[in-house]
Amino acid sequence: MEDGSEKWNFQGNKKLNASSISVRGVYNMLMERVNNSRDKKPLVPLCRVDPTENPLFRTTPEATDSVSTAVNSYNFNCYPPTVGLPDAKRAIANYLSSDLPYQLSPENVFLTIGGTQAIDIILPALARSDANILLPRPGYPQYDSRASCCLLEVRHFDLLPERGWEVDLDSLESQADENTVAMVLINPSNPCGNVFTYQHLKRVAEIARKLGIFVISDEVYAHVTYGSNPFVPMGVFSSIVPVITIGSLSKRWLVPGWRTGWIATCDPHGIFQKTGVVKSIISYLEITTDPPTFLQAAIPEILGETKDDFLSKNLNILRETANIFYDLCKEIPCLTCPHKPEGAMCVMVEINFSQIKDIVDDMDFCAKLAEEESVLLLPGVTVGLKNWLRISFAVDTSNLVEGLSRIKAFCLRYAKMP
Amino acid sequence: MEDGSEKWNFQGNKKLNASSISVRGVYNMLMERVNNSRDKKPLVPLCRVDPTENPLFRTTPEATDSVSTAVNSYNFNCYPPTVGLPDAKRAIANYLSSDLPYQLSPENVFLTIGGTQAIDIILPALARSDANILLPRPGYPQYDSRASCCLLEVRHFDLLPERGWEVDLDSLESQADENTVAMVLINPSNPCGNVFTYQHLKRVAEIARKLGIFVISDEVYAHVTYGSNPFVPMGVFSSIVPVITIGSLSKRWLVPGWRTGWIATCDPHGIFQKTGVVKSIISYLEITTDPPTFLQAAIPEILGETKDDFLSKNLNILRETANIFYDLCKEIPCLTCPHKPEGAMCVMVEINFSQIKDIVDDMDFCAKLAEEESVLLLPGVTVGLKNWLRISFAVDTSNLVEGLSRIKAFCLRYAKMP
Repeated sequence: MEDGSEKWNFQGNKKLNASSISVRGVYNMLMERVNNSRDKKPLVPLCRVDPTENPLFRTTPEATDSVSTAVNSYNFNCYPPTVGLPDAKRAIANYLSSDLPYQLSPENVFLTIGGTQAIDIILPALARSDANILLPRPGYPQYDSRASCCLLEVRHFDLLPERGWEVDLDSLESQADENTVAMVLINPSNPCGNVFTYQHLKRVAEIARKLGIFVISDEVYAHVTYGSNPFVPMGVFSSIVPVITIGSLSKRWLVPGWRTGWIATCDPHGIFQKTGVVKSIISYLEITTDPPTFLQAAIPEILGETKDDFLSKNLNILRETANIFYDLCKEIPCLTCPHKPEGAMCVMVEINFSQIKDIVDDMDFCAKLAEEESVLLLPGVTVGLKNWLRISFAVDTSNLVEGLSRIKAFCLRYAKMP
Repeated sequence: MEDGSEKWNFQGNKKLNASSISVRGVYNMLMERVNNSRDKKPLVPLCRVDPTENPLFRTTPEATDSVSTAVNSYNFNCYPPTVGLPDAKRAIANYLSSDLPYQLSPENVFLTIGGTQAIDIILPALARSDANILLPRPGYPQYDSRASCCLLEVRHFDLLPERGWEVDLDSLESQADENTVAMVLINPSNPCGNVFTYQHLKRVAEIARKLGIFVISDEVYAHVTYGSNPFVPMGVFSSIVPVITIGSLSKRWLVPGWRTGWIATCDPHGIFQKTGVVKSIISYLEITTDPPTFLQAAIPEILGETKDDFLSKNLNILRETANIFYDLCKEIPCLTCPHKPEGAMCVMVEINFSQIKDIVDDMDFCAKLAEEESVLLLPGVTVGLKNWLRISFAVDTSNLVEGLSRIKAFCLRYAKMP
């Protein structure tokens, strides 16, 4: 019995390989490197995008008060409805509609446990045998992991660093065929930190329309922009192509741990109804767990009562940290940031391996950096771009400066002699 | 464009049929029947198990205060660790260990978004090609739905109404083969309302051991017992067979809407480590959304500070409603309750179709009852037992009496003349 593993019918699960490239999986692996290093420096975590690690990024009392009030009312301890509390759905519909040329109805909104569960619902809802989905490269690995779990074939189209991470429209078109059901766009972009223009989004919508594919617009970072391009929701073009919008309180309200998000169908022609997408979404919601009812109950007040100065203060801090990052990054040998971040909370940086010795790839770079400098970065391979790095800059300024200084020292150590 | 559904590549998703028998799907369908009925009576919902619909079943201030404190501290807005907050894991390990012959460690505990997500994690973690799992009949349909989503073959063993819903051990053995990875037992039983004895659980553990299969013990109703059989966790027998325990705050603390639960591996011989089950669970947690961090943070106080009189008061109310149910049910023609409930919050009742006219099956029974009497019951087919009913009695006494009186009137209307 003590050594009885051979006596059990279950002998391991080979199915899930996707997780080896999850952000969390890599984060946990890097943390182990830090913890095992001999003379450990204080941790500088630039790997995950969790702004709450910066004490300046504290959510607003309107948000916490709303949650407290809801939980103390004893009215929201019950199971929520399958698709979410009606008041929360109405509040989100109104919130999103203020940026759209038409009014969403509460029926267009489905509550989810953060953006993550929105992905977990949408992908299987669109999966069928032989179907494929187009994902951006670089992108967000949750899409890849979940697609592989529901046997949805993944194809990638490129984002172009030399064009401010715009979609490579030729690459997009060439990947699609009659079995392509949808494409994903993340705007403002995780991991690139760019914000797509109105004209570019319109062009993407037109191509999707031509290809007969739906657009899933991941707008978890909606309104988190601090450069020259304003945030334009893809739903603006939903009369061209039906759009599934994914949103969340996480980033704009600085509460990623609340795991409160939504799916919104932007679809003035009712195509998601006609093609059964809405039915499929509801079917998955029926067998899925929900955001806690009292958190849903807090949404109307959070969306309605949050003050503009809270939101603009956060953008000012992000603008500052993005600037600091971009300026200091220029001074680091062997790394190139092709595009200054103007939205979201992270950015892609290329490792110039021709100038580096004794490091084999981005994973090795991040593992050694964690071990030697206690700085955590996300290897680009995790987001689809080998030998790049994803760096989150939504941290304390002093931490950011310290982290970049250690990265610089690290790169100098591994740089080939000129 | 207006009628353009044929222009889109996505043409429906035929994959998910399981949801048609989800509790929520049926609940939503029955609610539609109620809402469409002509002279609608006040609703009596005995379909879902949501005790919070009874104003007597209010959670304890220790629970709501803990959540408020955690959210107002601003310390728990960050992402939680993959496997859960360490303090929450430790508190759950201690809580569960007080009923076990050995001490669980925090590493044995994984936080989940209620019992539902625990199922969503465990089943794919055990799935591999050709694997099958043994589920009780009647049971909880989430297991069937999720197993079919991850291509895990489902086989059912019977629970025996004439033996107080004990496991049919011959049926259990006959269903297993070398590809059977696990069996599920729900104790206290949803949907049957029985509580398994120490001796019976030990016998089940021994058979599972012989078959080489793990036991998943769904103990979402742990300690919700009010008859002669005390609650015995399956983990007591984990030196015979490794046990995965599923638990939740939902039922004992009367907060199903909080969606806060856990997986615990009860496995003194470390077999889940050796066979890769733990690794597989963590892999799925890495690509899955989490319980909100502040809810996790509230767990130590909720488990530690809840007063005994809150817990015993709830059991007294349940004992009373179970008695009322059982006595009144005897007076209803065409229905038979084979076993008085002694745990959990619902019970199975058989429809004697030989005595009924103009109703074709249990689904038809529930649909007509909803339409004509505004009483919601769950058709037995939803939980695997056609032509039975699952009735939740965790409601207000006056509602329960009113509901049973309408069911009686309904049955009298449809009873064949003697």
